[in-house]
Amino acid sequence: MAYLAYSELTDSVFVINLPYIKFGLGASKDVGYEARRLGMTSVLLVVGRRLAETKLAEQVRGSLESQGIKVEVFTDVHVEPDDEAIVQGFSKVRDLRLDGFVALGGGSTIDTAKLLNLLYSYPADLMDYVNRPVGKGMSPPGPLKPMIAIPTTAGTGAENTNVAVLDIKRLHVKTGVSNQYLRPSVAIVDPLTTVSMPPMVTASTGLDVLNHAIESITAHPYTARPAVSPAERPVYAGSTPIGDLFLPVITWAAKYIRRAYADPYDIEARYYMQLGANLAGLGFGHAGVHVPHAMAYPIAGMVRDWHPPDYDFGYPIVPHGISTAIPAAYAFRFLAPYNEDKFRAVARALGLDDSGTPREVGERIFDFYLKLLEDLHVPTNLKEIGFSRSDLDGLVEGAWAQQRLLVLSPKAISKDDLRRLYSEMLE
Amino acid sequence: MAYLAYSELTDSVFVINLPYIKFGLGASKDVGYEARRLGMTSVLLVVGRRLAETKLAEQVRGSLESQGIKVEVFTDVHVEPDDEAIVQGFSKVRDLRLDGFVALGGGSTIDTAKLLNLLYSYPADLMDYVNRPVGKGMSPPGPLKPMIAIPTTAGTGAENTNVAVLDIKRLHVKTGVSNQYLRPSVAIVDPLTTVSMPPMVTASTGLDVLNHAIESITAHPYTARPAVSPAERPVYAGSTPIGDLFLPVITWAAKYIRRAYADPYDIEARYYMQLGANLAGLGFGHAGVHVPHAMAYPIAGMVRDWHPPDYDFGYPIVPHGISTAIPAAYAFRFLAPYNEDKFRAVARALGLDDSGTPREVGERIFDFYLKLLEDLHVPTNLKEIGFSRSDLDGLVEGAWAQQRLLVLSPKAISKDDLRRLYSEMLE
Repeated sequence: MAYLAYSELTDSVFVINLPYIKFGLGASKDVGYEARRLGMTSVLLVVGRRLAETKLAEQVRGSLESQGIKVEVFTDVHVEPDDEAIVQGFSKVRDLRLDGFVALGGGSTIDTAKLLNLLYSYPADLMDYVNRPVGKGMSPPGPLKPMIAIPTTAGTGAENTNVAVLDIKRLHVKTGVSNQYLRPSVAIVDPLTTVSMPPMVTASTGLDVLNHAIESITAHPYTARPAVSPAERPVYAGSTPIGDLFLPVITWAAKYIRRAYADPYDIEARYYMQLGANLAGLGFGHAGVHVPHAMAYPIAGMVRDWHPPDYDFGYPIVPHGISTAIPAAYAFRFLAPYNEDKFRAVARALGLDDSGTPREVGERIFDFYLKLLEDLHVPTNLKEIGFSRSDLDGLVEGAWAQQRLLVLSPKAISKDDLRRLYSEMLE
Repeated sequence: MAYLAYSELTDSVFVINLPYIKFGLGASKDVGYEARRLGMTSVLLVVGRRLAETKLAEQVRGSLESQGIKVEVFTDVHVEPDDEAIVQGFSKVRDLRLDGFVALGGGSTIDTAKLLNLLYSYPADLMDYVNRPVGKGMSPPGPLKPMIAIPTTAGTGAENTNVAVLDIKRLHVKTGVSNQYLRPSVAIVDPLTTVSMPPMVTASTGLDVLNHAIESITAHPYTARPAVSPAERPVYAGSTPIGDLFLPVITWAAKYIRRAYADPYDIEARYYMQLGANLAGLGFGHAGVHVPHAMAYPIAGMVRDWHPPDYDFGYPIVPHGISTAIPAAYAFRFLAPYNEDKFRAVARALGLDDSGTPREVGERIFDFYLKLLEDLHVPTNLKEIGFSRSDLDGLVEGAWAQQRLLVLSPKAISKDDLRRLYSEMLE
């Protein structure tokens, strides 16, 4: 019973800190009501350029305006945002008079709104807020302006988390800003907003749900952290008995991701994928993610020439869910023997046989992932997205820098472990 | 798939609204840190008279004072508080200068603090805030003072909910105040605070966990409610796919309640009972409870002469968990055929055979409850706690008044149904 460990040397406490979550078909119609309830009178609506042209964006804007709320629209959202885009974006809104933020979009949009809100509420050099060791890891002095997040993908769970993910352009590194004030005040989670996601976006974001759920449940237990003062306690605690309750999210993702991919209007599939994304956001938002996400960051950061369908932005990109799912297959196979009970539970949740040795269980999870990636027309190794063995050192160093995530691995991870895993992904 | 129902006539949205939850062995040591984070400088510590004399209360007070926070102590807490006690209590604190509330105790203490905070933040006639039809059901105009709740029983989950339960003395009726602002800002949930609970308090509060979990999961689905505007949406939504994830709480309660009762220092049992209480608080706090709780209110309100062990306050009382558990046994047996899938899942979670007809499943749940009550030395019918058939009309009318709860039943409930159930409990 690792969760019951109690000593002077280790921590024994974790935190769950959620927005006010409004979930359901059609829930996005309530945005104006919620904004007024939060006291907003003049908001920045952060929405990607394409989504801004849709009926959904028009409805959200109309709902806000019907409550007498002034709406400024910000559409300079970059998919997988970097620091330069955020700083440039901030320069366009800093002189507006705003008392609230509304984000309508996927994880990139919600994270952009979190960071704009942070800079708007407490102006500073963005790097002051970026996680250590890349930035200074400063926390803002108090609450930001209230923010409503309306996710239109079923993936990141960013509406629930205290984190914004960010590329640091000149360092070619993906990191983020993590502090309790970043969390939106209200999350409006409406599965009907996700039906317009194109297939590859559905696939990538859906894979992210699966990875979040499995990583947060298989992370080392929260009681494995060294004792710290309450102020120093990290946002990512390690696995907890609350996060473990979200095992059914793994089952939903395994069951519904292909259906949502094949038929965008399969409302049952959209409902459970969106609910799963939100709950996995709760799960990983407090427990954390580990090896697959750490290994994904340099994959996303070092991409040179992959332009997947439905992500035609004119620049190469490895969508977040894909950059995590490829290493997830290999990392889970490698890690299964080091957290046997949890990986057996994951196998069961995936509908797999959970018997045999831990290695056999790991192999089955690996095979499940590869089959799933193939069915979704997603690459299963790094060669297919333009990497070669000459990238190995860079990938290893990039993942090694993500100590904040690697410490959550159920097995202590060495550079050799990372090299071995990346090598397998390049074969 | 009732959860996917979507029409103009029915609602399709529910809300999860939780405090910042800090959970773990020893978490209560952080109270001073959390109070300062919330900006408190002068607080009312609400704590029952006996608990106020303990080392735990001294530690909580010390933790607050170590952060430079002034602490006024309020010990006039009534178990199962009534309106007169609250109004009288408020008269003692209304002239203090307070910017925060800290509750240390069971559900009665936490609910007392919620109501004192409500009256202190927005003074009014208490009946203005009491739920309709007994009171006017008014909502306060905005957020209350920040409040920290530290539950020392593993039962009500009151630290998570938007509700305070209240006896209205002159009407002999139990009702409450429900609105979103009543929810504490921070819940500090520390299983170590529960080891001093005496056996009958452990039994009663533990039974409440079981009832909350089963009732919230078997309530009619949130999509069965009529469509309403966002402002009119009730706190209790009906069962949801999020609440359903807390089925393991039923398993924990069934597994650990006898152990916690038999050995107060069984930390594993205390850990899972306290975690279960908190999560069941999340579950019923948004989904609601139904027939057993509606039937419990008049049992608690009409008691004349029962003085259970460990509740020797000089007045007769049916502790909340006992007043709900007796009707739960009979009501679940009656309701099992009307929500077959859910009651089968409940049976499985209780470790029972879930096969056979729905009536057979209901009988097994009934037998489980009766055996559990006997093992905990809790009465299994109303005669043992001083009721007779002459009370039948009063009991039926008292439960019938709880329409707010009865509408959540999976089967439409008539007065005849209530009479039949109470009759069985009086045989």
